[in-house]
Amino acid sequence: MKSKQKFLSRDDIINLPKYHRINLINTLSGPRSANLIGTQDSNNIANLAIFNSVTHIGANPPYLGVIMRPLTVVRDTYNNIKALGHYTINSVNEKIYKQAHLTSGKYPSHISEFVEVGLTPAYVDGFPAPYVKECNYSIGLSYQEEHLIACNNTILLIGSIEWVTIQEHGLTSDLCVDYDILQSIAVGGLDTYYKTRKVERLSYAKV
Amino acid sequence: MKSKQKFLSRDDIINLPKYHRINLINTLSGPRSANLIGTQDSNNIANLAIFNSVTHIGANPPYLGVIMRPLTVVRDTYNNIKALGHYTINSVNEKIYKQAHLTSGKYPSHISEFVEVGLTPAYVDGFPAPYVKECNYSIGLSYQEEHLIACNNTILLIGSIEWVTIQEHGLTSDLCVDYDILQSIAVGGLDTYYKTRKVERLSYAKV
Repeated sequence: MKSKQKFLSRDDIINLPKYHRINLINTLSGPRSANLIGTQDSNNIANLAIFNSVTHIGANPPYLGVIMRPLTVVRDTYNNIKALGHYTINSVNEKIYKQAHLTSGKYPSHISEFVEVGLTPAYVDGFPAPYVKECNYSIGLSYQEEHLIACNNTILLIGSIEWVTIQEHGLTSDLCVDYDILQSIAVGGLDTYYKTRKVERLSYAKV
Repeated sequence: MKSKQKFLSRDDIINLPKYHRINLINTLSGPRSANLIGTQDSNNIANLAIFNSVTHIGANPPYLGVIMRPLTVVRDTYNNIKALGHYTINSVNEKIYKQAHLTSGKYPSHISEFVEVGLTPAYVDGFPAPYVKECNYSIGLSYQEEHLIACNNTILLIGSIEWVTIQEHGLTSDLCVDYDILQSIAVGGLDTYYKTRKVERLSYAKV
């Protein structure tokens, strides 16, 4: 079905009611991965926060990036990564998306979101940041570099992958993560959760 | 079902066969949006290329970012954006994902991928870059800023949103894009396409 086309100019967008503008712009980039970032502070409080901006930076050596909001209020995840140098990225799945979403609440720094939302911190020997036991795959990272985005003071933070732990049956024979099997969830904007269902794996496009 | 947990250290990952490492690291970030970037060169050749790294940067004013690969070979999309100052981001849907994937082939610069893969360039009055008529929503952007990522020479390129055109029935009453209605597709790594199906919209997490 095709319906009427709606055209919005830059002025139309800027003049939208605040939450309409936030909804539109946050969903325009398309479905995004839902990931929990696990960190620990100097008092050993395990912190957990949901992010929808984790993206691939490179495979050799392996790097992931994430966009962090401006440091206009206390950002526990950012501060813990900079202080500790290590963090985890944990894939949200269909069983835990409600708990994952609750980590977006504004808890004081001395409260562990793991306890508040009912997820379990787990540790890899010698690695100081907690991962999420209920996630089907988790990644340990060390801080690599950051870039302050001039136009709005958001931050691109890049980490180097130190380890991966994954449910083995969720990997194809050539090591793709199968999101159907591991029930990886995607998110639209800030609050709408989508499951993903494989359509097709295509072959390399040869000209 | 829970299966055996597979643990890979950094050394394990770096020592994987090349395509296994590429598959693993490219799929670890979770489902990503599939978008086509439309540009035009100085000879008015309309260029089109698929990207899986479009991400939200900010809503007010509205910005989107994309990660570009290192400039070790000619990158038409990057060069056209820098020369023209404008480009479009177009959401891939279930009807056109095969054609969208084909744009990843290495066509010479004087060949238009629109023609080669069978998609239709369309134009907004006064805006020099083509959008994709077959996409259910498209965004016009102007170049804003870029950051060279030191660890591997990839580039974060940020654009300012100039306009949006969208099938009106795919917007909720408070202006979220509904990926079910508009059949937005997600991608795992470089080649595996997933459809998205809404599970639930959750309310703001209050503490």
